Amino acid sequence: MTLRCPNCKTPIKEYRNPFPTVDIIITVDESIVLIERKNEPHGWALPGGFVDYGETLEAAAVREAKEETGLDLRNLKQFRAYSDPARDPRQHNISIVFTADGVGQLKAGDDAAGAKLFPMEALPKNLCFDHDRILADFLEQAEK
Amino acid sequence: MTLRCPNCKTPIKEYRNPFPTVDIIITVDESIVLIERKNEPHGWALPGGFVDYGETLEAAAVREAKEETGLDLRNLKQFRAYSDPARDPRQHNISIVFTADGVGQLKAGDDAAGAKLFPMEALPKNLCFDHDRILADFLEQAEK
Repeated sequence: MTLRCPNCKTPIKEYRNPFPTVDIIITVDESIVLIERKNEPHGWALPGGFVDYGETLEAAAVREAKEETGLDLRNLKQFRAYSDPARDPRQHNISIVFTADGVGQLKAGDDAAGAKLFPMEALPKNLCFDHDRILADFLEQAEK
Repeated sequence: MTLRCPNCKTPIKEYRNPFPTVDIIITVDESIVLIERKNEPHGWALPGGFVDYGETLEAAAVREAKEETGLDLRNLKQFRAYSDPARDPRQHNISIVFTADGVGQLKAGDDAAGAKLFPMEALPKNLCFDHDRILADFLEQAEK
């Protein structure tokens, strides 16, 4: 996708970088919060989104969690970064994944069709993006 | 800094994201590899650089280490991500930091004015960016 001048349509050369995003594994009473995506790709996914310019990763995680689930976060910790160029069908998005405890009333935000708690042993399969793998890595570490 | 059309100079609206970079804490015989930067900001720093579109973080770490130090990496592991918007004076660069063992002949790359091994207890002060803090976090974790 070439960026073009809106006036004269000249192609603009731009140096492309992967896009930084955050996802958050939010635990509430031994269950994990997933959201049902309203936009493509559809399906269940971890809450998350793009990091704004000038925003820390931690601030992005708190903001996205609040926007998409209504929950506040406690005990926010970095988990791991995922960067396979094929992990997101839309473009090369890097995800820095966090873990946290969720506090407050779970409520799907405007961006989400739904938000729900799933017991760790009964997570849905075929989550969007690489979120199956992220949760498998999380559960594997939790067992240690 | 506004992006402008090279032809008619119309300002181009672009959605800005922080830029993903990697830095690598390379250990060789209990010493850590630092490079002397040829470009601004000058001073000693961890080897690292920008992640290319379509490249994993791990591949970027291996490539940048080789380019800047001549070393191959073994036992590459994610350490932590640093994202304070003020950590780099040039622009908002997020760094995903790795640890690894260095193998081969240490040799400064074209981008670096020098590359040198420093014993962990005799690291120089006032490294570029937030690399003092990154190494303090690394040494603190190594002591645990």
